[in-house]
Amino acid sequence: MAAARVRPLRPADRAPLREALAACPEFSAHEVDVAVELIDAELARTADYVHLVAEMDEPGAGAARVAGYVCIAPIPLTDHAWNLYWICVHPRVQGHGVGRRLMASAEAHVRAARGALLVLETSGRDDYAATRGFYGACGWEAEARIRDFYRPGDDIVYYVRRLGDRAKE
Amino acid sequence: MAAARVRPLRPADRAPLREALAACPEFSAHEVDVAVELIDAELARTADYVHLVAEMDEPGAGAARVAGYVCIAPIPLTDHAWNLYWICVHPRVQGHGVGRRLMASAEAHVRAARGALLVLETSGRDDYAATRGFYGACGWEAEARIRDFYRPGDDIVYYVRRLGDRAKE
Repeated sequence: MAAARVRPLRPADRAPLREALAACPEFSAHEVDVAVELIDAELARTADYVHLVAEMDEPGAGAARVAGYVCIAPIPLTDHAWNLYWICVHPRVQGHGVGRRLMASAEAHVRAARGALLVLETSGRDDYAATRGFYGACGWEAEARIRDFYRPGDDIVYYVRRLGDRAKE
Repeated sequence: MAAARVRPLRPADRAPLREALAACPEFSAHEVDVAVELIDAELARTADYVHLVAEMDEPGAGAARVAGYVCIAPIPLTDHAWNLYWICVHPRVQGHGVGRRLMASAEAHVRAARGALLVLETSGRDDYAATRGFYGACGWEAEARIRDFYRPGDDIVYYVRRLGDRAKE
């Protein structure tokens, strides 16, 4: 399969992105709704979320298809920190480097905006172990944790990716 | 000076609360604006922020005066966690237990809503040492930290107050 291309969000992406979210078993129906609200906020320009969309040519498909996306935004009251709110790759095309390509694009966007720190929040649950492993493989580090944050037995884990010191990369 | 009373937010509180925020040297002008946006959001019912307002009788003042407030809200995608976004006591009446009274009212509100965990974010800077000491004296614990979050040399510190286990209190 060809490599994914990453580009800005378009209105026509809304339906395939919702489909990609709904196809991911780790997202609840409520989480899908929240993720789509952020997409709608960028399309309506009511908030400063930035969605970067991956698309790729797939065998048998006439045109390039939406493969996934990442959602980032600057964090208010900080000088140079951005949050990575959501990353999603359709299960149909997982395992082809789309997630890493999206992570690299998010970093490039934040660097271009003179950001120096990316933060994401994820769950400490066992069924998120593969997700956390992906963040680690992309160069992120687990830096903080609050026990029982989401619910009893379900911690929040804060991962960070520091962009300031190029010599360390 | 008489003890403070805590009650729900009223539209007439907006001006004295802005004045209290502006009188606190630890809040920047931008932070004051952000705090007032949350007050406006509750007054307009466009978000689920809850502001609890302390007022007290002061010598020489005809009616009770606004002394400070606390702003809390449930955290989306969690079962029982609330954020404490803002707490402010006018410097004119600091040192009379208003802050502790507001903290206790916030806890009572969260308990009544079946919440079990309060989280707040603060700075690790030296000039916030007294603020962090106040949280500790109110029973909160520093549970997590991300280095250089706000800007280089300015960490974010997450304090938590666990309400579930009454035997520990």
